[in-house]
Amino acid sequence: MPVTSADISAAIRDVPDFPKPGILFKDITPVLADPALLAGCMDLLAEGFRPGDIDAVVGIDARGFIFATGVALKLNAGFVPVRKKGKLPYETHAESYDLEYGSSTVELHIDAVKPGDRVLLLDDLLATGGTAAAAVNLLKRIDAKIMGVRFLVELGFLNGREKLACSEVRSVIQY
Amino acid sequence: MPVTSADISAAIRDVPDFPKPGILFKDITPVLADPALLAGCMDLLAEGFRPGDIDAVVGIDARGFIFATGVALKLNAGFVPVRKKGKLPYETHAESYDLEYGSSTVELHIDAVKPGDRVLLLDDLLATGGTAAAAVNLLKRIDAKIMGVRFLVELGFLNGREKLACSEVRSVIQY
Repeated sequence: MPVTSADISAAIRDVPDFPKPGILFKDITPVLADPALLAGCMDLLAEGFRPGDIDAVVGIDARGFIFATGVALKLNAGFVPVRKKGKLPYETHAESYDLEYGSSTVELHIDAVKPGDRVLLLDDLLATGGTAAAAVNLLKRIDAKIMGVRFLVELGFLNGREKLACSEVRSVIQY
Repeated sequence: MPVTSADISAAIRDVPDFPKPGILFKDITPVLADPALLAGCMDLLAEGFRPGDIDAVVGIDARGFIFATGVALKLNAGFVPVRKKGKLPYETHAESYDLEYGSSTVELHIDAVKPGDRVLLLDDLLATGGTAAAAVNLLKRIDAKIMGVRFLVELGFLNGREKLACSEVRSVIQY
């Protein structure tokens, strides 16, 4: 039987007060540790696409790497990392975004995605959406064709989706 | 034709003076961006194992996540992350190691691997071996059965292999 989003949801562990007091963290590591659920995540995240539909699956550092790799292998696409400033070795495009206190910057190698490439952007979690919105902006700046932006978990009450300049946003599990 | 280590080696890009002056960084992102080479990495890293041989593939933050995910999916195993201190939300085992200046700590969730579990430890790069050695020690401490420790790239001249308390060490590409 195929894995459903309810199966994945049932394996997610709530960890109170992480990364700071008052936050209930959705810990996906029990999902990843289960071979059937791990594979099921990739099936659900790749839903609607077939091998050949996507040129590059872009994953956001660090848990996004897990899902972007699995989906890239499934769709016979390349894997491209978006990382925090200073982590990528070659020349990059950079995009900054505001945090609650201060700001942060994400980068993409200048030759990782070409204009017109069909890309799928993946991360584990859509919360306030700052990082994902910055990644979308990076991809738009280089005229990539964003076929979808997908998350395993979306914290809908934080309205992160509204920040994303993309209509093709989907998540496997919503809270 | 199956992908060989020479194919992967040919796609690795040398980036001078990263992360600091005098270091020639081996940039694997062009390998990852190529669908055939990405899949080839997983084949080569999983060599000799069949689905059912491994319970958990352990990947070291962050590039190790890429290879550990691909190999876990291929071998029908779970994926388990080893992360820098403070990144894992639940209770952890921790192991510190010395750096050139100062020290660092890696962590593993206390319930991620059980005693006797057959684990394969993966990372992109074996350099001085400090992080990998700490990860091996974490796994030994919980009596996991380490079936192998594998790297895409090994910088042999740094003798990192000597630090690993494990006889089953292998790398796809050696410099």
